[in-house]
Amino acid sequence: MTDSQSLSALQPGRTVLPITDPDDPRIAVFRDIREKDLVRRSGFIAEGTVLLDHLAISERFRAASLLVLKNRLPGIADRIERLGSDCPIYVAERDVIDAIAGFPMHRGVLAFGIEREAAPTLETVVAKAAAQARKPILAAIGIANHDNVGALFRNGAAFGVGVVLLDETSCHPLYRKALRVSVGTVLTTPWHHGGDAETILKSVCEAGYQPVALTPSAEATPASLDPARPLALFVGAEGPGLPASVLRRAMGLGIPMAEHVDSLNVAVSAAIVLARLFEARSAG
Amino acid sequence: MTDSQSLSALQPGRTVLPITDPDDPRIAVFRDIREKDLVRRSGFIAEGTVLLDHLAISERFRAASLLVLKNRLPGIADRIERLGSDCPIYVAERDVIDAIAGFPMHRGVLAFGIEREAAPTLETVVAKAAAQARKPILAAIGIANHDNVGALFRNGAAFGVGVVLLDETSCHPLYRKALRVSVGTVLTTPWHHGGDAETILKSVCEAGYQPVALTPSAEATPASLDPARPLALFVGAEGPGLPASVLRRAMGLGIPMAEHVDSLNVAVSAAIVLARLFEARSAG
Repeated sequence: MTDSQSLSALQPGRTVLPITDPDDPRIAVFRDIREKDLVRRSGFIAEGTVLLDHLAISERFRAASLLVLKNRLPGIADRIERLGSDCPIYVAERDVIDAIAGFPMHRGVLAFGIEREAAPTLETVVAKAAAQARKPILAAIGIANHDNVGALFRNGAAFGVGVVLLDETSCHPLYRKALRVSVGTVLTTPWHHGGDAETILKSVCEAGYQPVALTPSAEATPASLDPARPLALFVGAEGPGLPASVLRRAMGLGIPMAEHVDSLNVAVSAAIVLARLFEARSAG
Repeated sequence: MTDSQSLSALQPGRTVLPITDPDDPRIAVFRDIREKDLVRRSGFIAEGTVLLDHLAISERFRAASLLVLKNRLPGIADRIERLGSDCPIYVAERDVIDAIAGFPMHRGVLAFGIEREAAPTLETVVAKAAAQARKPILAAIGIANHDNVGALFRNGAAFGVGVVLLDETSCHPLYRKALRVSVGTVLTTPWHHGGDAETILKSVCEAGYQPVALTPSAEATPASLDPARPLALFVGAEGPGLPASVLRRAMGLGIPMAEHVDSLNVAVSAAIVLARLFEARSAG
């Protein structure tokens, strides 16, 4: 059986294109993904089947092309069927795929994802959350750590936030590491990246949300949250915390902790508050 | 000013020993710490000033020796004073210290830590938690990921657990990565590593604790926890979860989550339950 036969048997009617040269211009977007660990102007890299599944059901993003290790193709045929028929499937042997990626690509599945249309504005995503039973909003200010941004998405999605808002100083959620740590929720949870803290604060207030600032010194605790009130939870980086402009206008909220403990991870703190709110909203 | 003058001026009465040869047998314990990322039979490596501070106040562990980048010595003189006077301070220039560690040692502070006496038994640490106003117990079963073990300690310490119990299949908390992620709480929170889930379950039950198993399918939620009752929270690895023997005898507890969400990180889940319990105990 020739290569093209085995490939066409897997994906009848799909464009399956063998790649044998790492310098093939068709797969340029997948080249050296670790070194240029940056959101490309035109799209992003999603690695592995978990992210591929989120991409397949994403309203906002779609797979523009796929690069798959040849021996992984049979195992992910069903998943590939869920992608749009206009997504070319490039297939390569291990040595070629490793040379393209720039390191040993154990997962063997890389998707190049793009926005289906122009990215939504801040007002659009906030209005959407408000329209969905005023789902809580999670606003991240100055979160430069990729793991933390990814974990904020994962935890936010677990507790049904309507949107994640990231200010311009926070890292972009489509960075490879943030995307991976989010276990794909960056692709399925509405979000907006950009603007400063004041702009974000103004936007949520205008939509009728109560801004709540997570800050260690606050006296109010999660038990005092009113589940009937639409809530926008603001979190800042460990160390600097939230800007004074946010602290001034938001209700402060602190998580009671043992003495002599400095702080919790920001995504853990957010999870504690959002879990509490979710349980109260579910019960009410 | 000679080297020995500058060093003795910093630490009067302390043994400050310059190291110029990476193969010097006195600093063998610090050699190639990344490659043999294992708990040494006789002790462990604590990296950076945060861990050094926890080592200085630890009841269970102490610094047996210290290896410091020469230009960092003035900045950490106060911290060194807090260590026992029997702890030799080895000092080296950057090229020597990097050659010893086996990689660029940005932090420039390495402590070799040891137990002050024999490690406490399971019964001892459980009894100690029970004697301290029956502080909650956190029991980790099958947590092989170093980050998760470190994060469980950090979150457990934040919410005042009396002891962390890890079964023999969980990773050892003195592994370098676990220690670092714990931000030093492995050194200041009582714990025991070893035994199987059944042994741990038996031990906490005999001490009068109610075993509670964190498991997605359970109907009881964190709101239903009785803060007056001594609680031992059991958590398992994502995927396999807790063994049937634990699920049979423990009260199941689930964290309400949005639909279509698989799971949370284990340390985040534990934090949500322990935070709830801590707030209720503080209020009660």
